[in-house]
Amino acid sequence: MSALVDVATARRGMAALVDEGLGDEEIQRAYAHAVWSTLVEPGDGVAGALIEALGVVRALELALSQTSERAATSEIGLDDRELRAGYARWQPRRGDAVSAFDAARRAGARLLTPDDAAWPVAVRDLGVHAPLCLWVRGDTGILRTPAAVALVGARAATAYGTHVASQIAAECAADGILVVSGAAYGIDGAAHRGALHAAGPTIAVLAGGVDRPYPAGHGDLISQIARSGTVIAEVPCGSAPTKWRFLARNRVIAALSGATVVVEAAQRSGALNTAYHAASLGRPLGAVPGPVTSAASAGCHRLMREADAVCVTGSADVRELLGYGPESDPIPGAEDAARTDGTTRIMDALSARTPRTTDEVARRSGFSPADAGGVLGLLELDGRVERAPTGWTRRSTASPPRLW
Amino acid sequence: MSALVDVATARRGMAALVDEGLGDEEIQRAYAHAVWSTLVEPGDGVAGALIEALGVVRALELALSQTSERAATSEIGLDDRELRAGYARWQPRRGDAVSAFDAARRAGARLLTPDDAAWPVAVRDLGVHAPLCLWVRGDTGILRTPAAVALVGARAATAYGTHVASQIAAECAADGILVVSGAAYGIDGAAHRGALHAAGPTIAVLAGGVDRPYPAGHGDLISQIARSGTVIAEVPCGSAPTKWRFLARNRVIAALSGATVVVEAAQRSGALNTAYHAASLGRPLGAVPGPVTSAASAGCHRLMREADAVCVTGSADVRELLGYGPESDPIPGAEDAARTDGTTRIMDALSARTPRTTDEVARRSGFSPADAGGVLGLLELDGRVERAPTGWTRRSTASPPRLW
Repeated sequence: MSALVDVATARRGMAALVDEGLGDEEIQRAYAHAVWSTLVEPGDGVAGALIEALGVVRALELALSQTSERAATSEIGLDDRELRAGYARWQPRRGDAVSAFDAARRAGARLLTPDDAAWPVAVRDLGVHAPLCLWVRGDTGILRTPAAVALVGARAATAYGTHVASQIAAECAADGILVVSGAAYGIDGAAHRGALHAAGPTIAVLAGGVDRPYPAGHGDLISQIARSGTVIAEVPCGSAPTKWRFLARNRVIAALSGATVVVEAAQRSGALNTAYHAASLGRPLGAVPGPVTSAASAGCHRLMREADAVCVTGSADVRELLGYGPESDPIPGAEDAARTDGTTRIMDALSARTPRTTDEVARRSGFSPADAGGVLGLLELDGRVERAPTGWTRRSTASPPRLW
Repeated sequence: MSALVDVATARRGMAALVDEGLGDEEIQRAYAHAVWSTLVEPGDGVAGALIEALGVVRALELALSQTSERAATSEIGLDDRELRAGYARWQPRRGDAVSAFDAARRAGARLLTPDDAAWPVAVRDLGVHAPLCLWVRGDTGILRTPAAVALVGARAATAYGTHVASQIAAECAADGILVVSGAAYGIDGAAHRGALHAAGPTIAVLAGGVDRPYPAGHGDLISQIARSGTVIAEVPCGSAPTKWRFLARNRVIAALSGATVVVEAAQRSGALNTAYHAASLGRPLGAVPGPVTSAASAGCHRLMREADAVCVTGSADVRELLGYGPESDPIPGAEDAARTDGTTRIMDALSARTPRTTDEVARRSGFSPADAGGVLGLLELDGRVERAPTGWTRRSTASPPRLW
């Protein structure tokens, strides 16, 4: 038991932020996650590696301890220079936690950690750069919606772009697909509005604290998302949105989503950064085309040409990007997913176009790679899937679509 | 020497349609090609196979002969039933040649056959379905321009589509790239106009005779193309453009061009038929994106999604599609091509993105497959090209383009 992270401190700190019924160890872990989020900038890989190596509580104790107590850190197997630089970054923020937790309580925010059932497991793909916790305003259950798409794009969107973003978002959300975006002006806002209009699920991932709606002009929209959907941030309440936090926020949008679609983006738009994260994570990438005469679509066309982004013209294309079949196939909801038999889950995890490795299929279907491999082998014998050097694809039983 | 295709008849028939200086055998062959074009519908594979098997003169004699003289046709190795059906198709058109040749003379058209130096060798890829000859108004030299792009699309084009078609055509033509299209209303006309405006090379491939400009409203445009570029048709003068001839004409547009780009096309536009031919011939396919809300762009988006068409936003993308580098690389002209050393020609024939087989590289560079293979092997050792199971690609020496 630690002196720095004692149960009483943890319970006091976490009051109204987590479930009252948590046990001592759980509350200590939740508290440690929360404190960590006040010490680091998003995506701090040294913090992530330290927590992975030692556990969140022990890692925090080390981070908060005096230099003299850290003699044993070389055992951890982390680069000593990096670790020392980490301590140097984290120490100045000691003590920021109390005001951050108070701000969260005032905003009605809750804490979500990797220990929670509602934790979105997809962010694990970020490895040591994954968020250490999430601060949430709204319904945490939405975070585990099986199908999620990031609809992102330029703030300086055109009427065409906002129209298409809101249309695709509304259709996806009506279909039960979670619409993830960043609450910015332009495409992001249009995507959230489309989803809200269809009374479907949507998540806004903020770069600053969830108590500091940004941009200010979207205060009402963000409140509405908090009521009907979810507003999340990995930075604690009170944090200002900085340039770095915007870039880091984009990786969370990409990681939360099964696919990322850029609706409008200029040649050097920040939305391309989200696309980059999606591609790095191996998530399918889509782009909505527009007039070649429109600078607001140039980034989308570039993604199609240079990053193999799929041309997305409507929600049916988004479904396909997420690995679901034509409109008649239902998107498995949280409840459906549990009932669906293994074969269907594997088939749902495959695309007819994009080959996926066994590991990727396993991740998408929620099987172990060994189990997924077994089912895939049977489906191959059955002629329902095809194996190529680059992975597995679904064979369509209907004749292929003809263009002519 | 044949009774049906005697030299005197051939010389009389070909007067003013071919070079006066042709020898007896050449004039007989030219005449036979010309007569064949009056007997068949475009793409008649039985005629093509018969000509390939027997030579154009002997094949014609057989086609024009009486049934009793055809006893020996089983030796040819063609399906007897197909051949009989061919004779039955061709016989009724005996005698159409005289008026067709007269019409050609009145129109100032010339005959081009596979024997001519100006014959566009690229159409050989159509095999037995290649045009038997071409009727030409204008400069035949243009037909051997090394770089050619088909710019095609809907007749019911939007202002956006015609603007983009004419812009891309002008830039390509100014660059020395031959703009091939079908002289139809909408995209085709805009492409020709763009090329003419840039004083660059353009070819109109007509579905009917070159003496019957179609559509009538493009009579002036087609005359202008005949003056500054070339108007061609495989059907003889006097032929009406029929539905079949439009579809068959599209295969010639695709075959003449190193790449086909669809600028605007509705879901079921005829322009997709040209795209289909290009894809069948292994020619790269491009499509210009447009608003997803525009029905006139739906076919283009479909080509990107379902036929792996490359997203084309300007003439630089067309250059890349044709296998040429960024704007600083010159497109080799007819003269340049002779001066360029072998390595450069092979490098020019490669794409950084699309793998090409040795045969394809040979065809594009004008080497034999064996010679192309040798140069490719050396370039591989040099690290300038990359070999994959699907073919060769050019390695870019500069760092790859970054999106973020």
